[in-house]
Amino acid sequence: MYKRRLKKPDGRKLLLYSRHPIPSDIEAPGPSPHASSSSHLRWHPLRGEWIAYAGSRQNRTFLPPAQYNPLAPTTDPAHPTEVPGGAYDVAVFDNLFPTLTLDAIDSPPTIVDTAPGRGVCEVVVFTQDERANLGSLPLWHLELLIDVWADRYLELGALPDVQYVMPFENRGVEVGVTLHHPHGQIYAYPMVPPIPARELERQKAYFAEHQRSLLGALIEAEIRDGRRIIHLNDTVVAFLPVCATYSYEVWIAPKRPASSLTDLTSDERRDLAVALKTVLLKFDGLWARPFPYVMVFHQAPSDGAPHPESHLHLEFYPPYRMPGRLKYLAGSELGAGLFTADTLPELKAEELRAVEVSFE
Amino acid sequence: MYKRRLKKPDGRKLLLYSRHPIPSDIEAPGPSPHASSSSHLRWHPLRGEWIAYAGSRQNRTFLPPAQYNPLAPTTDPAHPTEVPGGAYDVAVFDNLFPTLTLDAIDSPPTIVDTAPGRGVCEVVVFTQDERANLGSLPLWHLELLIDVWADRYLELGALPDVQYVMPFENRGVEVGVTLHHPHGQIYAYPMVPPIPARELERQKAYFAEHQRSLLGALIEAEIRDGRRIIHLNDTVVAFLPVCATYSYEVWIAPKRPASSLTDLTSDERRDLAVALKTVLLKFDGLWARPFPYVMVFHQAPSDGAPHPESHLHLEFYPPYRMPGRLKYLAGSELGAGLFTADTLPELKAEELRAVEVSFE
Repeated sequence: MYKRRLKKPDGRKLLLYSRHPIPSDIEAPGPSPHASSSSHLRWHPLRGEWIAYAGSRQNRTFLPPAQYNPLAPTTDPAHPTEVPGGAYDVAVFDNLFPTLTLDAIDSPPTIVDTAPGRGVCEVVVFTQDERANLGSLPLWHLELLIDVWADRYLELGALPDVQYVMPFENRGVEVGVTLHHPHGQIYAYPMVPPIPARELERQKAYFAEHQRSLLGALIEAEIRDGRRIIHLNDTVVAFLPVCATYSYEVWIAPKRPASSLTDLTSDERRDLAVALKTVLLKFDGLWARPFPYVMVFHQAPSDGAPHPESHLHLEFYPPYRMPGRLKYLAGSELGAGLFTADTLPELKAEELRAVEVSFE
Repeated sequence: MYKRRLKKPDGRKLLLYSRHPIPSDIEAPGPSPHASSSSHLRWHPLRGEWIAYAGSRQNRTFLPPAQYNPLAPTTDPAHPTEVPGGAYDVAVFDNLFPTLTLDAIDSPPTIVDTAPGRGVCEVVVFTQDERANLGSLPLWHLELLIDVWADRYLELGALPDVQYVMPFENRGVEVGVTLHHPHGQIYAYPMVPPIPARELERQKAYFAEHQRSLLGALIEAEIRDGRRIIHLNDTVVAFLPVCATYSYEVWIAPKRPASSLTDLTSDERRDLAVALKTVLLKFDGLWARPFPYVMVFHQAPSDGAPHPESHLHLEFYPPYRMPGRLKYLAGSELGAGLFTADTLPELKAEELRAVEVSFE
């Protein structure tokens, strides 16, 4: 993998990644529309969680017409986008409307504890081709992306302010996507956020008692059971977990407890790319239409402590429970935290298994 | 308040409430469309939470045309709805598509712990008038509803299987509402669900240290600060909490730490009705259109233990962050649990304060 580091005229970083050497004459396009970024955290005393306030995001770009796609390669220097043209495969840059920034300052004191919204919010442009999507990318391209995500985990995780690095993709207007060009995001948080924190706490307790991975034990049981497995290769498995909250919730994980993307061997990265492509093609094949989802990576915190309990996995939360019917999070989910699933993962796994996909 | 207990032909309970005596000739309409209900819980080992699986809900009634409104009073016995006609104000009945039932049985064993989905799911028909909404009801009607919610808290909370009773309302297609007739729901859970459990844990720790209510201390600070208060009367306050997660998140609470609706005096119930009506009219007045929201009550568990730490409050989660722009829960909220707010509650409180409302 080749990597080039550039700086935008407004100071934001721009990284280019490619499987081939990147021409040295590629420059960061500029200037960008002005965006002030200031965000801070406030402590929610009843829930015991931080809430991030990022006022600059209120007026972010909202489904612009195609000719204003800010993630398309710049073709005319007089009309710069966020990324340059030229020979590279993946671009990463600091979000123009970040929830977290390294230079965030604290807010004036208020009646609860506050903290600066320190961290990094990056945009990952998966490809220069705006008609592509993650599942349509060739395997080598997905492997490159896995290397990019691993590179970001290392580089962002090494920052003193960063405790947790989470790559994710929101796909589809149903989950609020404001730009259709294939892209994901990475949030580098100044704390281990509540959901990974809860998962890690459970994993830690299990590891202390059994000297093995909690997710690894679940994966073994899922493979033995078999009913919810939708893809299995030498080192990676994709399945609807027995405790799925969304109808088509899918997890992808290495069978062995690799704690983060950086721990994966090149064979495992290849197997992860195959599993990822298989799941994505099954999603889009299910109803012969682009299938919306939120996809997140859960891996070890970057807090400097060892995390032998951590077991890397991807979680997909697709909002549809059947064609045309969305799952809404409402009273029970938002107010009580009890998810009510209308479907059984065993039956939804059958649907996804029945979608045949082939590639290469 | 008058109350009459009826039974539907399919065995479900039907309760009528009124400020006047209820005529004895009102009968439960019947029969209902057949619905099989079976639900169970599965343990999510990584999150440490139960997930409820209720397959019968997948095909529940979805925005039927007006002439099939199942919550309208029955006018023709040959075409029964869920509720009778006649002189009463509020009806409560067992949900035809329940997530939890008292006779739920356990599922076959699987690779995680399971439990029967024991509990009660009730529908609360706020009024017979399908064109009304919670905010348009007169004060006496809201006071009656508060008495109904308190009655349900007592009756459901006394059931051996029930540990937590949560009345809530989902309002608007934006939060997935499938029937437009003004109604709410009550879930009586077999456990204290995760979000109230976390809130109670924090309240308990604070109470142990300070011998007073955590929410009470926050309310005092909010009143002193003043910027986020949108209504204040003798005993009840409505405000956007300093740590709001949604742009127009509003909490309503008694100033003193009443632990549940049943603890409120009749003066406090009146004041709560005034605060509730004020908030609802401000919501609908803001953009001169019905304002969608999820509204939940958080109060003391019904687990038999004393809960001096519990401080009753209502929380509103409105999905809009500005006209026409929804807040989507996506990568950071669903995958990390860190809420990112695009707006400051101080500014949103100004908007709601500027909406003048008057009644009675």
